[in-house]
Amino acid sequence: MNEQWLVGVDLGGTTIKMAFINYYGEIIEKWEIPTDKSGKEITTDIAKAIDTKLSELGVSKDKLAGIGMGAPGPVDLDNGLIYETVNLGWKDYPLRDHLELETGLKAVVDNDANIAALGEMWKGAGDGAKDLICVTLGTGVGGGLISNGEVIHGVYGAGGEIGHITVVPEGGAPCNCGKTGCIETIASATGIVRVAKEKVATANEESILHKIVESGEITSKDVFDAAEQGDYLAKEIIDYVTFHLGLMLANVANGLNPEKIVIGGGVSKAGEPLISKVNHYFNKFAFPRVAKAATIKVATLGNDAGVIGGAWLVKSKILN
Amino acid sequence: MNEQWLVGVDLGGTTIKMAFINYYGEIIEKWEIPTDKSGKEITTDIAKAIDTKLSELGVSKDKLAGIGMGAPGPVDLDNGLIYETVNLGWKDYPLRDHLELETGLKAVVDNDANIAALGEMWKGAGDGAKDLICVTLGTGVGGGLISNGEVIHGVYGAGGEIGHITVVPEGGAPCNCGKTGCIETIASATGIVRVAKEKVATANEESILHKIVESGEITSKDVFDAAEQGDYLAKEIIDYVTFHLGLMLANVANGLNPEKIVIGGGVSKAGEPLISKVNHYFNKFAFPRVAKAATIKVATLGNDAGVIGGAWLVKSKILN
Repeated sequence: MNEQWLVGVDLGGTTIKMAFINYYGEIIEKWEIPTDKSGKEITTDIAKAIDTKLSELGVSKDKLAGIGMGAPGPVDLDNGLIYETVNLGWKDYPLRDHLELETGLKAVVDNDANIAALGEMWKGAGDGAKDLICVTLGTGVGGGLISNGEVIHGVYGAGGEIGHITVVPEGGAPCNCGKTGCIETIASATGIVRVAKEKVATANEESILHKIVESGEITSKDVFDAAEQGDYLAKEIIDYVTFHLGLMLANVANGLNPEKIVIGGGVSKAGEPLISKVNHYFNKFAFPRVAKAATIKVATLGNDAGVIGGAWLVKSKILN
Repeated sequence: MNEQWLVGVDLGGTTIKMAFINYYGEIIEKWEIPTDKSGKEITTDIAKAIDTKLSELGVSKDKLAGIGMGAPGPVDLDNGLIYETVNLGWKDYPLRDHLELETGLKAVVDNDANIAALGEMWKGAGDGAKDLICVTLGTGVGGGLISNGEVIHGVYGAGGEIGHITVVPEGGAPCNCGKTGCIETIASATGIVRVAKEKVATANEESILHKIVESGEITSKDVFDAAEQGDYLAKEIIDYVTFHLGLMLANVANGLNPEKIVIGGGVSKAGEPLISKVNHYFNKFAFPRVAKAATIKVATLGNDAGVIGGAWLVKSKILN
């Protein structure tokens, strides 16, 4: 029995989520610290936070087996580099080496969406499925792809960029990435709002959504709530969104033949009404053998997915 | 220096391609035997063919390091099973065990499209790229996906079924797989002919292709030849085909971030005019970082891709 703890770290734009996790994926202690927006003090802050927490708990450092950390942006796993994270001013930033120097612990780094996928694989909705697609529907659409238990990184760390799969090849809405018609313009929280406003502006009949749009800001939750109440336009919007999301997931699945597809992020809180419609279109567009093999689930770990996935990196890459 | 030979075997519907290949991927001897359509004598035929060839060459069996074999249909790599190959009557067929028993050699089996991809990675247009998409445009559209040097098999051996990615979600042509709008209905040799006939039937102006269709059977080569001569309708067809092929490849690449995309099969003989147009649409639809990383190439190994990929399996799975 391994009694050591794994340190999971998940770097976000405003906070850094941290946790001590045991060898079986159970969280012993979790906490957050603010993100230094200059990017310069991040690894020092993490090292201090670990030492402080250890002394609070009265535990010595040799209890820790290593650090697994997720960061935004594409990652060079072999060299532990973050190729680029614009918001933090990082470019080819040797995050792993900094972490190891500051903490004296072994470290592994990966992209934040990838560690969330690993977390869901290990302890969440993936339920041990080693072939897994994880998609996060938040402000944007993020993704982590796992084949035979390993994250697909690609040659340049841009593997899993499924938010920028084109689902409207002609006449699609502009995306932040510079292209048009990406699934992010439709199935992110922002995308759903965009679609809703467009449909409200051109609708023939009156819908609950008209009043919501007029009275202020509409959210993706408003759309799901209205659909639940039977509103025709809200239903039409959700049909449009899930049609394209099901199409995208089916097309990725035809390449990967996953056992589980895990949908997370704010939009996934809609739960069963979302999943059942995505499932309907997924089955329509997936190769029959692929459709049969895959189950679509809502992510279960929420904000803990990243730190648990980070701990998995320690377990699989440092301890093994 | 390893002096042993690797045996590559590529099982097709009419012939079985076989080769002795050295540790450096050079073909020492290659030959073909007919495929037993009942499926029952295939491994016996292979064992006899190996022994006959060895005695022809005056070489003893301990020169051989093992067999790597590709077969049509989804494969369970861990157990060496072919899940199903309808034409040969195989169902959960223990191909690896049969091969090992008949030949006395160690064996590894994989899907035929996957070993072709491994061959192109090792000695062909992939040129060592460990993140690779291989697509074969023949009667159908086949695919092999490689991430970090390993084939993506998926949970049920259906990884790489990119021929059935949906590119026309609404109103697409029916596909053999039971769905509609698959890339196979557009970019296979058969698909190009289908598109050509459809466009000829509805064209406003006269084109070279009208006469070809009237005078008998049109082929995908006719379309590329006519486009070369400047025929407007042929150009329109190729634009339609490459638009959808570029879209499909970009969408797969957004998941995999490959270094190389290798296009093989009969249609790929069109060469540069095909590649440059696919490249154009690929760059339009791929995430910028993904587009920058990928080079699209015509496959270079032709019918040898399978046996060379089979030899790679011996080198990487048996000798390593």
